[in-house]
Amino acid sequence: MAKNENSRVMVPLDTAYELVDAMRAKFYDHLPHEKISIDDALSRRLYSDIISMERSPRQHISTMDGYAVKAGDAYPLELIGEVYAGDMPDHIGHGKTVYITTGAALPEGSDAVLRIEDAKLEGKQLSGLPVEQWTSVIKAGSDFEVGDHILSKGTVITPAMIGLLHGAGIDEVEVYRKPRIAVISTGDEIRNGMTKNTNAPTACAMLKTWGCAPECLDTVRDTYEDTVAALDKASSQYDAVVTIGGVSVGKKDFVVNTIVEGGDVVFHGYRIRPGKPLLVSYYKGKPVFSLPGKPTGAFTAMELIVSRFLRGELRNAGVCLPVSSDLEFPKDGFEYVVYVKIIGDKAVPMGFPDSPLKLFKGPRYGVSIVSSSPRSMVTDGFFMAKENVKAGTLVNVQLL
Amino acid sequence: MAKNENSRVMVPLDTAYELVDAMRAKFYDHLPHEKISIDDALSRRLYSDIISMERSPRQHISTMDGYAVKAGDAYPLELIGEVYAGDMPDHIGHGKTVYITTGAALPEGSDAVLRIEDAKLEGKQLSGLPVEQWTSVIKAGSDFEVGDHILSKGTVITPAMIGLLHGAGIDEVEVYRKPRIAVISTGDEIRNGMTKNTNAPTACAMLKTWGCAPECLDTVRDTYEDTVAALDKASSQYDAVVTIGGVSVGKKDFVVNTIVEGGDVVFHGYRIRPGKPLLVSYYKGKPVFSLPGKPTGAFTAMELIVSRFLRGELRNAGVCLPVSSDLEFPKDGFEYVVYVKIIGDKAVPMGFPDSPLKLFKGPRYGVSIVSSSPRSMVTDGFFMAKENVKAGTLVNVQLL
Repeated sequence: MAKNENSRVMVPLDTAYELVDAMRAKFYDHLPHEKISIDDALSRRLYSDIISMERSPRQHISTMDGYAVKAGDAYPLELIGEVYAGDMPDHIGHGKTVYITTGAALPEGSDAVLRIEDAKLEGKQLSGLPVEQWTSVIKAGSDFEVGDHILSKGTVITPAMIGLLHGAGIDEVEVYRKPRIAVISTGDEIRNGMTKNTNAPTACAMLKTWGCAPECLDTVRDTYEDTVAALDKASSQYDAVVTIGGVSVGKKDFVVNTIVEGGDVVFHGYRIRPGKPLLVSYYKGKPVFSLPGKPTGAFTAMELIVSRFLRGELRNAGVCLPVSSDLEFPKDGFEYVVYVKIIGDKAVPMGFPDSPLKLFKGPRYGVSIVSSSPRSMVTDGFFMAKENVKAGTLVNVQLL
Repeated sequence: MAKNENSRVMVPLDTAYELVDAMRAKFYDHLPHEKISIDDALSRRLYSDIISMERSPRQHISTMDGYAVKAGDAYPLELIGEVYAGDMPDHIGHGKTVYITTGAALPEGSDAVLRIEDAKLEGKQLSGLPVEQWTSVIKAGSDFEVGDHILSKGTVITPAMIGLLHGAGIDEVEVYRKPRIAVISTGDEIRNGMTKNTNAPTACAMLKTWGCAPECLDTVRDTYEDTVAALDKASSQYDAVVTIGGVSVGKKDFVVNTIVEGGDVVFHGYRIRPGKPLLVSYYKGKPVFSLPGKPTGAFTAMELIVSRFLRGELRNAGVCLPVSSDLEFPKDGFEYVVYVKIIGDKAVPMGFPDSPLKLFKGPRYGVSIVSSSPRSMVTDGFFMAKENVKAGTLVNVQLL
């Protein structure tokens, strides 16, 4: 099995991103695509560039209520009719004008609109301020012409793009099929119900919001044979696999053993806490993300790495808020992901019991919040820190 | 018909928000609710508080690999077995210990874990550093107990909450039915196909992403009778109505006439450009949002007002970026919503041809970008400004 240098050292986050970016490119190259109606295209990823089938606007359009005129025609002009939005106006000759409303198409023979407030009408005789050509007019084709490139391959369709596609006369688009992702939980304590499985439903819900078609498979017993069987099956039937648990170095961490034996490790461990034992690999040609079992570690790996793999780099929208208390981090080369509740415009951190971070024991949540619990993931967002942070320091909270 | 003072003056945005907040409270009071599986609950709004049916964790759990001990027991201790995650361990007596892995349940009789790196094992005899009670242990029930309040009425379910609900032993939740919202386009130019309808599909797509069940109804002709018929039908069959177009004061702006005659105006006009003629009302008891027909105005009203009505105040996540060019605004008491593309880490504004804002004529988009076009809505976000902005000023871009 090919092993690369990253299979034996913990990679910094930047390296993890680079490795995962390369995986993403390859992934979408191989993902099937399908033609769908634009009514179903919201949040789907375009497989091809979109070229307009329409001219927009189709006619020169008035942007004001006023009179359609030919720029340069001498006043007075003779008023010979009116044009409303939706009317298909007749040609007007020199020396003529028509009343026109906002949104109406300019009659052939006119090329500007004299605003009603700049005009003076006496009987059928119109005079007013001089207007330049194209005053108060949106020119035909000024938004786009037939054949214009309007959206690029790889774009994820937003509501505004749905409108644009309608405007461009597009009925169907070629999009990537939704990535089918298997989510596999491991661990006897999950399987026998001693511990409720909270990680897999959370991971599935995250994948859904990211435009994937996830499926939670049966929880795998802590044996080598069962782990191999589960990974064999998932990698043959899905586009990618997320496993949860079994990535440490204990006797029963069979996910690591299985992948080291039968797969290609991309990296094992990244310099992020919580969740450092994250294992990223290919198994039988499919990308596999093996998350640690602790809820905070699993969630962080989903948010940082699996999201990056599927969606690429996203612009980080955040809010700048002062942190509520001093935080101490060891100088251990790790970057810490600090989950926070926003309370009274402060970012109040949730602690990690197994990290050197102090536990948050605020009155609002009692003393019982522990970071490896499912409840501690119901936060408003997180910030990242590499060194000690003083209470009151502004941090950029990425909202969840 | 009751008319309030806001039916005759343009309201500032803050007032618009207050009025719409009051509408929201009333709206959800009347919206039906339904019981659904938590597997379908992502993005739904809780109708009732959620009380845990479970204790979490169920047992005291070791957070480290090591040895389960009774704090205070004198070393050496006799090693009598091992416990893995998922095992249901036997009671251990004084002077005894078991090997325990991360995530495993503590045996009855033990109350702390001696980390493997702090321990020394000779044969079956364990000694090591002294440990306090509950060292390296997550106590049973420390996350939540049966009967604990874990989520509140009105909360919109996120992926992390799906995990929490699983952890709390909840199978079904009572949620508000998805708001059924009619989207009605008006205008002969839309109806006869002279202008492509881009607003309604965009509005429907936005409503979908906000957790609603929107439906685009037939485009209404510019007559009073057709407008009344459409509003009568929509208000009797849907929870709320969005209309597009016909909100100015022209001869064919029948939406205004219909609502002023037959409805209760909440406000008509707000001090926001683009989109100032927005009309918000009740018609036959249902909230109606009548958007202006220009794409930027319609989009802005959806983003600011309809979103607020449905989802309440959202924490504004944004990115602070320098604006690329000087922008001049008249001192007219309006707040300007400036849509931008983010290019090379600058916020590049898209202009509005009918506003005093300069048009953006960058080389990348040619000179043809006009703000009332559907294409100009495919932006990265917007910022709001009340006064002139110099190139280089940092603005908070709300990402779309």
